[in-house]
Amino acid sequence: MATLTLKEVADKLGGEAIGPDGLVIAGASSYESAGETDLTFADHPRLLPTIEQSRAAAVLVPRAVESSTKPIIRIDNPRLAFAQALGFFWPRQRPEPGVHPTAVVGADVRLGAGVHIGPHVVIGDNVRLGDEVELHALTYVGDSVEIGDGTIIYPRVSIYRQVRIGKRCIIHSGTVIGSDGFGFVRDEAGAHFKVPQVGTVIIEDDVEIGANCGVDRATTDATIIGHGTKIDNLVQVGHNCRVGANCIICGQVGLSGSVEIGDGVVLAGQAGIADHITVGAGATVCAQAGVIGDLPAGAFVSGYPAAPHREKLKAEAALRRLPDALSELRALRRRIEALEARLKEETGT
Amino acid sequence: MATLTLKEVADKLGGEAIGPDGLVIAGASSYESAGETDLTFADHPRLLPTIEQSRAAAVLVPRAVESSTKPIIRIDNPRLAFAQALGFFWPRQRPEPGVHPTAVVGADVRLGAGVHIGPHVVIGDNVRLGDEVELHALTYVGDSVEIGDGTIIYPRVSIYRQVRIGKRCIIHSGTVIGSDGFGFVRDEAGAHFKVPQVGTVIIEDDVEIGANCGVDRATTDATIIGHGTKIDNLVQVGHNCRVGANCIICGQVGLSGSVEIGDGVVLAGQAGIADHITVGAGATVCAQAGVIGDLPAGAFVSGYPAAPHREKLKAEAALRRLPDALSELRALRRRIEALEARLKEETGT
Amino acid sequence: MATLTLKEVADKLGGEAIGPDGLVIAGASSYESAGETDLTFADHPRLLPTIEQSRAAAVLVPRAVESSTKPIIRIDNPRLAFAQALGFFWPRQRPEPGVHPTAVVGADVRLGAGVHIGPHVVIGDNVRLGDEVELHALTYVGDSVEIGDGTIIYPRVSIYRQVRIGKRCIIHSGTVIGSDGFGFVRDEAGAHFKVPQVGTVIIEDDVEIGANCGVDRATTDATIIGHGTKIDNLVQVGHNCRVGANCIICGQVGLSGSVEIGDGVVLAGQAGIADHITVGAGATVCAQAGVIGDLPAGAFVSGYPAAPHREKLKAEAALRRLPDALSELRALRRRIEALEARLKEETGT
Repeated sequence: MATLTLKEVADKLGGEAIGPDGLVIAGASSYESAGETDLTFADHPRLLPTIEQSRAAAVLVPRAVESSTKPIIRIDNPRLAFAQALGFFWPRQRPEPGVHPTAVVGADVRLGAGVHIGPHVVIGDNVRLGDEVELHALTYVGDSVEIGDGTIIYPRVSIYRQVRIGKRCIIHSGTVIGSDGFGFVRDEAGAHFKVPQVGTVIIEDDVEIGANCGVDRATTDATIIGHGTKIDNLVQVGHNCRVGANCIICGQVGLSGSVEIGDGVVLAGQAGIADHITVGAGATVCAQAGVIGDLPAGAFVSGYPAAPHREKLKAEAALRRLPDALSELRALRRRIEALEARLKEETGT
Repeated sequence: MATLTLKEVADKLGGEAIGPDGLVIAGASSYESAGETDLTFADHPRLLPTIEQSRAAAVLVPRAVESSTKPIIRIDNPRLAFAQALGFFWPRQRPEPGVHPTAVVGADVRLGAGVHIGPHVVIGDNVRLGDEVELHALTYVGDSVEIGDGTIIYPRVSIYRQVRIGKRCIIHSGTVIGSDGFGFVRDEAGAHFKVPQVGTVIIEDDVEIGANCGVDRATTDATIIGHGTKIDNLVQVGHNCRVGANCIICGQVGLSGSVEIGDGVVLAGQAGIADHITVGAGATVCAQAGVIGDLPAGAFVSGYPAAPHREKLKAEAALRRLPDALSELRALRRRIEALEARLKEETGT
Repeated sequence: MATLTLKEVADKLGGEAIGPDGLVIAGASSYESAGETDLTFADHPRLLPTIEQSRAAAVLVPRAVESSTKPIIRIDNPRLAFAQALGFFWPRQRPEPGVHPTAVVGADVRLGAGVHIGPHVVIGDNVRLGDEVELHALTYVGDSVEIGDGTIIYPRVSIYRQVRIGKRCIIHSGTVIGSDGFGFVRDEAGAHFKVPQVGTVIIEDDVEIGANCGVDRATTDATIIGHGTKIDNLVQVGHNCRVGANCIICGQVGLSGSVEIGDGVVLAGQAGIADHITVGAGATVCAQAGVIGDLPAGAFVSGYPAAPHREKLKAEAALRRLPDALSELRALRRRIEALEARLKEETGT
């Protein structure tokens, strides 16, 4: 952990420090758990009064804030600056370059400069690893896999044969890339004949994939994860899916086979997308939603079957009033019967 | 990758080639991504005009099709034939038989002919492996496990003690078979006392299990996966479940404890089955459905709580009309009030 | 497997044997699969007649039961006693103490007495393991991790740097503790900037975590799992969550970031909790429920969005009647129109 002054932090982040320039900042934290030498941040000016009560040494604030009872750093995007500051105080330590003697490395493997291969890693034949690639302990990399510069593969990852992974990707422990897609053809006897999955997976640059995910190889061709897309833990991506760039895919989301996800889509936790569905660019799918029809760009849907969130809320509100409405309906029927009886009586018909 | 002529492909598949017998076929692909030497397929004659526009060299078609602008192979089940053809062009390569020197093998382990044990595999005592079994890198096999002929265990699988796996099974990376079932008894103090899970798991023949699944061992007796059943990624099978033969269990499905699934059942993605529930043979549970009551054979259910899909669709459609119906209800009340007032006025009562 | 007499079993459990004291009991099982030397149990007196028809040698029964056609042991909590009895008959075998020669152990690692470190385990630097800790085959333990006395880590677990795990915990195969939380800040260009996750995870004493779970490290500070909490397979715990003591978290549950779960909460299978939500002590969340608002202590909720289960059932019942109600509504409108027409006719207005 490094130590910086308020002024140094502001300069590194491109912000304006208001407070004692020499103030020592030794870390960064949320305001709730900040200690007396910690930097914290306020997304919005209205949060500042609360944060001023915290123990934090200084606060990253939007430019709109002009002063505070705390030392501040005025900056365009306090949340982004906070993320950058965490990196200053706890810079990630790269593991030592080199191949651990317990690693098992196949034939014709090409290693870039500064590659780290940890204990008990297993690498097949014809593998290409770019510069500064990290393969941590107990990871498996199959034949003919290619991994781009600066990509970090954490311990206990499986990458099946021929998969291609881009630059600066991060893949967390337990994740499996390139296992067989789920494809079977029922024969006359009711048995399921396996469709060989002879395609592959392409992970583009700057993708992060969390722990214990599964990304299946395509039947033919490739399952693709677009550049800059971030995937949380325990996510399932079926064969032949094509996920666009800069998407956010939260924990336990499931994509069936041949799903097309546009750029910048957000899929919230436990959402599911049925096979062969297209989700337009910039769409948002709320938590636990089940998408069984194509979604246009910018859609905002929830529920099963997923529908525009506004309609779902309206239907949900109506549903809460339904038991009362059913009582009302019965009451109205009785009033109509009374009116009918009365008219019949009066008119004698 | 092999290369065959149109005639050779047709003969191997038992179909009838119409086109130049010597036409070279060098692969197989979906029509969208087919290249000029690829075989593709049409499930149905109506797809043929579209596929005729593709670059594919030839098309597997149903017998009902008599001719095409493309070379064709007329055959009973084009989709099944396509799956078989993928296997001709990209035959799976078995790994070299033998035990890798880094594998750790326990006492009294019996290996069948042609067994492959990869790098850093760990095998306990008293294990029995049939002929041609493959245990890929970094896999763990506990004491007294039995695995039948021809079964493939991909890298990084865990098989706890005493589990029995049949012949010709495929288990993908990251899957855990035989971990403890989730059983606890609450004591007077509110603490959860662990129920020892002393049963096991039996996987019958021809079962495939995807990546990162969990199949728990039984409390006593056995959790059973019936022959020919295919399980996708990230599926949870609780202790003492009994899954029938030839079922299809899609990604992220969860079975609680002691669930009974009949033969030929289909559970779509993210569906869940509550504990001690019975699902009758041939039933279909739609994606994300939550089954909390027994289902008869052949049921087709969706939603939570799961109910016949037809009723759910009706209720869903009604729900969409509900906000309008509530307005209508208010309007009718006003009209009744008007009628009542008018009658009261008229009759003076 | 040990063998005991009826009397010995009763004495060990603190119950009262009624039957031949010397009766040999050689195991324990559910009554459905009990053999002729097995002990079984009846939770409730009304189950006894059925169990008396089974092959079981003897039955653990509540004190309220005074006699049976079977030998019985009268006891306060038959289910708890049964769990204890399973442990007598199949006592868990601890693996041999010692460090396997294929394990890779870092610098400054302190091992307690009786520690077992299995084949191909990888341990970083500055790790502290308490007495009798078991690290099974192929497990990864990062730098500066601490694990308390008696904790069992099954094969193929990943524990990232600095994580602290308490005493007598059990962690099953494939689980990942301490991977990065899912935190990104969108920059002006629409790209997602990674928020460094510099916090950690604290697992308190007596926690059990199933197979293939993910528990993410905190952004700053710690993700916490309270003592005595039991977690099933494939569960996701996001960064900065704080789970209380003695909770039950069933399979495939997902907690987003910064969720607070009180003591003794039950989360049923596939339930999901949105970020920053608080769930009060003793609350129950039904299977597949989606919680998007805070829940008070003792709440019992279901559905999405989660609401009191009683209301949900009412709404669900009303929904089933909705299609008929909509028909009724149309019929009433026609009757009102008829009344209005008639009145208009009569009065000529």
